[in-house]
Amino acid sequence: MKMSFDYVQRPLLRFFSASSKERIGFIGLGAMGAHQAANLLKKGYSVTVFDISSEAVGKLVAKGATKAQSPKEIASQSDVIVTMLPSSDNVVKVYLGDNGLIHGINKKDLLFLDSSTIDPIISRSVSDNLASKNAILLDCPVSGGTLGAEAGTLTFMVGGSKENFQRAKPYLEAMGKNIVHCGDSGAGQIVKLCNNLILGISMLGVSEAMNLGVKLGVDKKVLASVINTSSGRCWSSETYNPCPGVLEGVPSSRGYTGGFQTNLMKKDIGLAVQAATSQNIPLPIGTFAFKSYEVLSKESYGNKDFSSYFELLQKLKPHILEKQVVELVSKETH
Amino acid sequence: MKMSFDYVQRPLLRFFSASSKERIGFIGLGAMGAHQAANLLKKGYSVTVFDISSEAVGKLVAKGATKAQSPKEIASQSDVIVTMLPSSDNVVKVYLGDNGLIHGINKKDLLFLDSSTIDPIISRSVSDNLASKNAILLDCPVSGGTLGAEAGTLTFMVGGSKENFQRAKPYLEAMGKNIVHCGDSGAGQIVKLCNNLILGISMLGVSEAMNLGVKLGVDKKVLASVINTSSGRCWSSETYNPCPGVLEGVPSSRGYTGGFQTNLMKKDIGLAVQAATSQNIPLPIGTFAFKSYEVLSKESYGNKDFSSYFELLQKLKPHILEKQVVELVSKETH
Repeated sequence: MKMSFDYVQRPLLRFFSASSKERIGFIGLGAMGAHQAANLLKKGYSVTVFDISSEAVGKLVAKGATKAQSPKEIASQSDVIVTMLPSSDNVVKVYLGDNGLIHGINKKDLLFLDSSTIDPIISRSVSDNLASKNAILLDCPVSGGTLGAEAGTLTFMVGGSKENFQRAKPYLEAMGKNIVHCGDSGAGQIVKLCNNLILGISMLGVSEAMNLGVKLGVDKKVLASVINTSSGRCWSSETYNPCPGVLEGVPSSRGYTGGFQTNLMKKDIGLAVQAATSQNIPLPIGTFAFKSYEVLSKESYGNKDFSSYFELLQKLKPHILEKQVVELVSKETH
Repeated sequence: MKMSFDYVQRPLLRFFSASSKERIGFIGLGAMGAHQAANLLKKGYSVTVFDISSEAVGKLVAKGATKAQSPKEIASQSDVIVTMLPSSDNVVKVYLGDNGLIHGINKKDLLFLDSSTIDPIISRSVSDNLASKNAILLDCPVSGGTLGAEAGTLTFMVGGSKENFQRAKPYLEAMGKNIVHCGDSGAGQIVKLCNNLILGISMLGVSEAMNLGVKLGVDKKVLASVINTSSGRCWSSETYNPCPGVLEGVPSSRGYTGGFQTNLMKKDIGLAVQAATSQNIPLPIGTFAFKSYEVLSKESYGNKDFSSYFELLQKLKPHILEKQVVELVSKETH
């Protein structure tokens, strides 16, 4: 019975999905979210916004958005809701807290798209909570940064059923270019964290290798070019080299400004470490990398691009840590 | 005066270099060297060989090589000498020890090509010793493994002057496909170590990320495919993925056999750590990676492919090491 009911409902939902008249609610108008909401407006959607910053709300209202008083009000007035929030705690509060989105659900199959990067376990839990109210939450974390958000070229990594992924796609395409289905609920978050875990680790490795080679007398461009045609090649070396002067137009060649902040990398790897810890999954070098970004942040590089680890290496005391590392890694094994 | 003298000598040397009649001496007939020497024979060179294993010598003699009694004899009877030895100590002994190559030098500008992977500082030192006898040593470490050695498709990373690089090229092309000039003496070694340092670190990162994602419920092929089109992409993920079943024809899909052994990766990263230590250059995550491969080796994966770290993760106790890592990384900073 349920299947045939769904069968009747879906085409109707799709019709609405494709219509520019649908009302989209948007919560979280930060550096990323403000651009995403603006792009939805540009595509002809009517957008209702909420943020704790009245200044951020004002800017979107000036572009044609409508202001709401609470997440609850957003849910009750929208057909699709997009959220872009800085942390797991914010997501829990905005979705499940007092006047949260969950309290405004007034129709079946209401679609929520959370493009925040958060703990996948928490993402699944919020999704389960909404499911109990017959609403749907897809995790849709992004990559592409503020430039991608502004240009509408973000990549969305989406977790949820295939059917709901298809339903969400038109809205995500209004804000991004690559919309990738990663699996069931939480899979978008997991894939993003795994990707950024590798990125964060490889950036530390490329920084140390470039620093070592240059200090030992090899030309930095020659070193990078051989690495990039060999088994050391990676995104961090090829397109984002941390050594100033190897590539133009990257953060390392402009004082480590305007890229992906150390604090955001620290947050993402921290979420990977947290997810691993909670599920008893070993993550030795991931944990080491997390702590390295903590140190980088404490050493006043928190708001600089994460490739500024290369610059930190110029300041590090050259202790070699054999004994400590032996102890550390040994404790990981039987 | 010296310049004009060189000017007269060089064309003569080049003439001999291009001749297939030149006599090549080869020392070190192990898993790599035996193939390299055989390829020189195939290209029509007369090859005199030396190795501590009479069995290894016998196999090359059966293919047409001549046997010598010592490195000294090799040097005295050859126009070009190629060495492929397992460690820095072996190189020092074969070049500078009793009956070593240096004692057989009997003509000016005798060319030595060391394709061993060793400490670049030691490589430079041996080169200086030979230079005092008017002989030339180029460091020419390789990548490509035993399959590349057999097929003659090795990459040679060469350190030495441009002029000597040109002189060496025909011989290296008889054993390899990509011959890359990396800079002055030692630069070949440095570039190789830097490349393998990144490779070793990224393999640990990809292993941990793939393990985390799969354990948290994401399909391994989906996970790898998103990473490979995102900022986590690297050689370890794209062409050598450590998670069994993601790629065909790689060591992880045949029980971690037939690849690049953990013990060799441990050796290469160990050389990077050693070079960094000796020159007071910080290498925190490099040192952590070195110790990780030490553990992997101790856990009976020494002769398996280095991507078997993925399998070790299935056995690791899931301690999270926050405190220890904080202490460890903190000690690296002011």
